[in-house]
Amino acid sequence: MPEPFAFRPIATDGPARTGEIATAHGIVRTPAFMPVGTQGAIKGVHHDDVRESGADIILGNTYHLMLRPGAERVAALGGLHAFMRWPLPILTDSGGYQVMSLSALRKVAEEGVTFRSHIDGAMVELSPERAIEVQILLGSDIAMQLDECVALPAERAEIERAMQLSLRWAERCKRAFERAAPGRALFGIVQGGDDQSLREASLRALTDIGFDGYAIGGLAVGETAEVMLKVVGETAPALPAAKPRYLMGVGTPSDILQAVARGIDMFDCVLPTRNGRHGLAFTRFGPINIKNAQHADDARPLDPESRCPAARDFSRAYLHHLFKAGEALGGTLLSIVNLYYYQDLMAGARAAIANGHFADYAAQTREQWTAKRDLTL
Amino acid sequence: MPEPFAFRPIATDGPARTGEIATAHGIVRTPAFMPVGTQGAIKGVHHDDVRESGADIILGNTYHLMLRPGAERVAALGGLHAFMRWPLPILTDSGGYQVMSLSALRKVAEEGVTFRSHIDGAMVELSPERAIEVQILLGSDIAMQLDECVALPAERAEIERAMQLSLRWAERCKRAFERAAPGRALFGIVQGGDDQSLREASLRALTDIGFDGYAIGGLAVGETAEVMLKVVGETAPALPAAKPRYLMGVGTPSDILQAVARGIDMFDCVLPTRNGRHGLAFTRFGPINIKNAQHADDARPLDPESRCPAARDFSRAYLHHLFKAGEALGGTLLSIVNLYYYQDLMAGARAAIANGHFADYAAQTREQWTAKRDLTL
Repeated sequence: MPEPFAFRPIATDGPARTGEIATAHGIVRTPAFMPVGTQGAIKGVHHDDVRESGADIILGNTYHLMLRPGAERVAALGGLHAFMRWPLPILTDSGGYQVMSLSALRKVAEEGVTFRSHIDGAMVELSPERAIEVQILLGSDIAMQLDECVALPAERAEIERAMQLSLRWAERCKRAFERAAPGRALFGIVQGGDDQSLREASLRALTDIGFDGYAIGGLAVGETAEVMLKVVGETAPALPAAKPRYLMGVGTPSDILQAVARGIDMFDCVLPTRNGRHGLAFTRFGPINIKNAQHADDARPLDPESRCPAARDFSRAYLHHLFKAGEALGGTLLSIVNLYYYQDLMAGARAAIANGHFADYAAQTREQWTAKRDLTL
Repeated sequence: MPEPFAFRPIATDGPARTGEIATAHGIVRTPAFMPVGTQGAIKGVHHDDVRESGADIILGNTYHLMLRPGAERVAALGGLHAFMRWPLPILTDSGGYQVMSLSALRKVAEEGVTFRSHIDGAMVELSPERAIEVQILLGSDIAMQLDECVALPAERAEIERAMQLSLRWAERCKRAFERAAPGRALFGIVQGGDDQSLREASLRALTDIGFDGYAIGGLAVGETAEVMLKVVGETAPALPAAKPRYLMGVGTPSDILQAVARGIDMFDCVLPTRNGRHGLAFTRFGPINIKNAQHADDARPLDPESRCPAARDFSRAYLHHLFKAGEALGGTLLSIVNLYYYQDLMAGARAAIANGHFADYAAQTREQWTAKRDLTL
């Protein structure tokens, strides 16, 4: 019998929290960063490297997987864990966000959303019930409700309409999910754009329905970092303290530190791998664009003290060469460097919160990014 | 003091031989397959995986590395071993072959070849002396003479002209190489196209000059496999038995087995990685095109008994999905599968020769490729 889903807070430091989420596939230490495995793979990176980076959990995209290879096919092959050979926890989104961002033709109705597949042009229906069914077929440890996400800036009426629709979908998702296997969790998603009264209405209605965790959605969709952090700072404290809080699609290391300070427990973002593929390495000393000519003769590694072999063992000159020569290994190595960096950032945050020094940790981390100490390594 | 270059034959089985090549960076077990690290990387594959596949030695391309990042730069960064972080032996070609195949504008003269770089359009000179200087700067364990390689079919007069020029370049390479560090080796290259009298003249002149090993060049350049094996079968036995014999740019597993049967000790080819990137896996049961629809629901691995984790642990359905979804991880995993396959093929050949059963090994290996036993795995 798999262990049921549970969140165990360990320590708080102001609004910042550290804890553990128990799932049927293992423990997730929070604050947690989830690498994004869009199509059943973390782009360009072998699963073994993702595990060794310290990731406790990854995110899978329902939209992509339902279209290809198909949720029923993945289920027949043993579920997403077996299909990918990723034995640790998996969170799946509901598909709603990608329907809005990737499908050129879509129609949102009370029943659900109908969209044209970006792969073969077929018309596909995604209702709250189907979103849950797909996530159960995939076998995710944490499923997300279907929601409608509005790009910012937007009119208040439009934000409110989408938020209210998302609430009705949240109820239907909850009902559909009650058939699910034990040990799995369903999260609700707070919507409401940059309007705090709408955020509060969404939050109250969701907690009335009752979920295993709560996400803040509809951010990192065009608004400034200031607006994003303002919404997080006003919303997170109002979420139930006994449940995990997940800020969807965020973000930069700086965004993450500031959201942790406001009480967020979980994050996902494509930045470590996307930036890695484009030659940007996250390091203790701030980001390094390895394609810059200054690195061509630099025998130093990215960080001799890194836990990551790729950051420690290869020279900047070699990494620079791989990008200049168009060798895919360059993108792979920098993606690995960045995945380690993000996990080390989270591990540092967890330890600092446990010791009551999170503000110092965040300040020192930020100071190091800009201290240019890198130049005298 | 690095160990000087030496070839130690261990056993013969008819013309087939097994032995060891000692270099300053370690032992190469022969017959050996050298993965191709064109631009300082085995395309799409981490060095650790190349090592774990069982490769004792890799090949680096002088043409590519002299243009980018530049031989002097690699030397300043500690040589190609340190630059790539590949601690085992490296063989470098002379650049001649790529000048012919990649440069749109080139002029061959007695002094050397002048060509337009395919990267930035600069005019570059490559003389026998410069080819040796570059390879010494790269720090390769085995350097190759500069030669002129003619695509087949070609007129006898043209083949003879290029062969004679290559001989004069061979002498100049030998003289330039005598300044080189101890422990390094220089190989001559037998040319002469598909004309055996020219091959014999080339071979006699090269052995008169005296090299640490001998390559058969100018094959796998357009001729049929029959012609290639005929030239190998007539040339290899005439090469000095006490020196390694290297068949350049070959080839398929079948070509390799047949060339080993004719006395060849060393091979290089881009097939394992190029085919891997294109979805073709080499297996004990013959090649598998993983992109074919028949694999979409196949939960079986490529080969449950493989030494290669990627061949053993991932389902065909998952590998198929990665290719269909355009995930680069698919090409990486199949490249690794193929590198292991080639190394296991060579390990099997070495063991079979040592036991005096090479003909049986080759026959059984070929039989298994076509027996379709795969279908009942």
